[in-house]
Amino acid sequence: MTTIPELAPEGELDHVKIGDFATEAGASIADVTIAYRRWGAFAGDPHGANNIVVIEHALTGDSNAADWWGDLIGSGKALDTQQWCVIVTNALGSCKGSTGPCSPHPDGKAWGSRFPALSIRDLVEAEHKFLQELGFEHVHAVIGGSMGGARTLEWSLLHPEFLSAACVIAVSARASAWQIGIQSAQISAIERDPFWHGGDYYEYNKAPREGLAAARRIAHLTYRGEQEIDERFGVQAQRDENPLGPYREPNQRFAVNSYLDYQGDKLTERFDAGSYVTLTEALNRHDVGRGRGGLNKALASSTVPTMVVGVDTDILYPYHQQEHISRNIGNLLAMAKVVSPIGHDAFLAESRQMDRILRNFLALSAPDGLDLGPMYVGDEYYI
Amino acid sequence: MTTIPELAPEGELDHVKIGDFATEAGASIADVTIAYRRWGAFAGDPHGANNIVVIEHALTGDSNAADWWGDLIGSGKALDTQQWCVIVTNALGSCKGSTGPCSPHPDGKAWGSRFPALSIRDLVEAEHKFLQELGFEHVHAVIGGSMGGARTLEWSLLHPEFLSAACVIAVSARASAWQIGIQSAQISAIERDPFWHGGDYYEYNKAPREGLAAARRIAHLTYRGEQEIDERFGVQAQRDENPLGPYREPNQRFAVNSYLDYQGDKLTERFDAGSYVTLTEALNRHDVGRGRGGLNKALASSTVPTMVVGVDTDILYPYHQQEHISRNIGNLLAMAKVVSPIGHDAFLAESRQMDRILRNFLALSAPDGLDLGPMYVGDEYYI
Repeated sequence: MTTIPELAPEGELDHVKIGDFATEAGASIADVTIAYRRWGAFAGDPHGANNIVVIEHALTGDSNAADWWGDLIGSGKALDTQQWCVIVTNALGSCKGSTGPCSPHPDGKAWGSRFPALSIRDLVEAEHKFLQELGFEHVHAVIGGSMGGARTLEWSLLHPEFLSAACVIAVSARASAWQIGIQSAQISAIERDPFWHGGDYYEYNKAPREGLAAARRIAHLTYRGEQEIDERFGVQAQRDENPLGPYREPNQRFAVNSYLDYQGDKLTERFDAGSYVTLTEALNRHDVGRGRGGLNKALASSTVPTMVVGVDTDILYPYHQQEHISRNIGNLLAMAKVVSPIGHDAFLAESRQMDRILRNFLALSAPDGLDLGPMYVGDEYYI
Repeated sequence: MTTIPELAPEGELDHVKIGDFATEAGASIADVTIAYRRWGAFAGDPHGANNIVVIEHALTGDSNAADWWGDLIGSGKALDTQQWCVIVTNALGSCKGSTGPCSPHPDGKAWGSRFPALSIRDLVEAEHKFLQELGFEHVHAVIGGSMGGARTLEWSLLHPEFLSAACVIAVSARASAWQIGIQSAQISAIERDPFWHGGDYYEYNKAPREGLAAARRIAHLTYRGEQEIDERFGVQAQRDENPLGPYREPNQRFAVNSYLDYQGDKLTERFDAGSYVTLTEALNRHDVGRGRGGLNKALASSTVPTMVVGVDTDILYPYHQQEHISRNIGNLLAMAKVVSPIGHDAFLAESRQMDRILRNFLALSAPDGLDLGPMYVGDEYYI
């Protein structure tokens, strides 16, 4: 009989050591930790049919999915924690509890520039090791948008036996050249910050905040549709500022620039520039075709029932990229389009539509329902 | 009888002083020079019906339109210099012969940060003064794309009596918030270059090349459609470089980044960072509604027969913006769509389509042809 894995208390951050990790490109990271949270009780067989849904966060997201997907995860919500055991890790390379550039190297100093480049596959492999470390050899589904969607797609190709269904949202089968270009512009904004110190700024008492904020401002404009931003801000001046004065003054701003400054500043308070560079680079390297005979062969080889979701106004991952996945993937469960002026971020913002999409996905992925017996949480209690 | 204006030799750069210039926002620039070129002989009345077509260049363009619109300007081409006298100035604030931030202030040093902020209207007013200085009170048409389109639209509202027709290409009636955001990201990239010195780098022996190149890389991604860039570069590595190595190395690039580096570097060799900031800021301030009762009232007040041209895949000035102009402008001559994967730059690159569009525009603008008598060039000769 299989042991029921011991899981983190409801909604609380916990950490799991997965040992040394070898990257796809051949570097290694010693003594890796993966942080995660869990909502809802476990039910079923850790090695077979069970009620685990793994959610994959986006670039600067984290394991606290009940925050950033608050309308969608919880009792009675689409990802109903009375029915599903939701597990969300912090990605390898990030800075919210999992090992990343700001974590201590075995020598005690931060990894910094010694932290290797990661691919999306590396993020998935680390998560796979994490789930195995917990005692799982199977989950019901993996769901994710943007960088989370890239990871979900790679999950379905790296470990098809590990999941019963996948929901791939607002992403492509590989980085497009445009994405690589605009993402590299963000990396460059950080690299050009004098406080970046080649990635080893942790030894200094100042972080490359300006560079990270500049990167985020650019990124934000790819996350939001131009019509939505224009409807909100147009050419309005920021209150008490005059962007039309006789001389250009950076502190006399249009409202949209004040908004973008806020988005940039806010990120510097919660995110590490090293992680931003590492994970952005992982997105540059996203390519499910690598080593699998090309993009369409890779997609065609997929056996996991996969739902593909896109946003009609997404300029970062345009809808034709999700159509491309849908047309070529080996086992298409369904396709859905979020209709919104918001652009890429609609998968985070359009809760009503996402609610219906995720409910539909789970219904399609378990058409006859799940009959899994009692629900456990760790070794402490069961319902 | 009106004197026939003396014009620059065919295709050669010439300079005209227009005196002191007061900007829309209330600053002044002493002793302004406007540089220009001319192709084709003049015919008609400098104060009435004549064969002058004024072409307006884009942000980093210049008066040498026979270079950047080489397929469209010349004998037998759409802008047939056997029939039309084509005049192209360098915009106020630019760095190709007209007065801009790198020009000498009356004190002998460069204007630098003392150069005022300009609006699109300022660019037009300076050109208006220039044409009057030459002796003209009327031209047949004004044509321009992107920043040139913004100027063309402002021409039709500031001096409707001065032109018989306008062709407004790949632009909007005002900056969108998204444009302001992405354009400000470019300005910020330059400002963050330590060699920018607040705009007064001319006194130093180093220019903010890194910042200007970074700005251009971002800009270029808004000029080109993502499908076109992706078809060319995809996730290819630059020859002899490996962007997938175990550690991220900025000199191990994807092909698209090498291409963008080239675009950035090339601009630093031909363009001044101060002019780039000044003209980008002018684009941020583009708003035909300002002081005219709002956008649609301003457009409705237009009396100049205007052709509006857009590109279906333009992400910088999306096609719905040209539809907006067309729906609201007081005297719509025609509308045309360039169909291209290239995006915004299609108005420069899709010569075949632009040829037909410009021929159509000129035919519509002079349906009965022009009967103007002999063609003059300066006071030297006539045909």
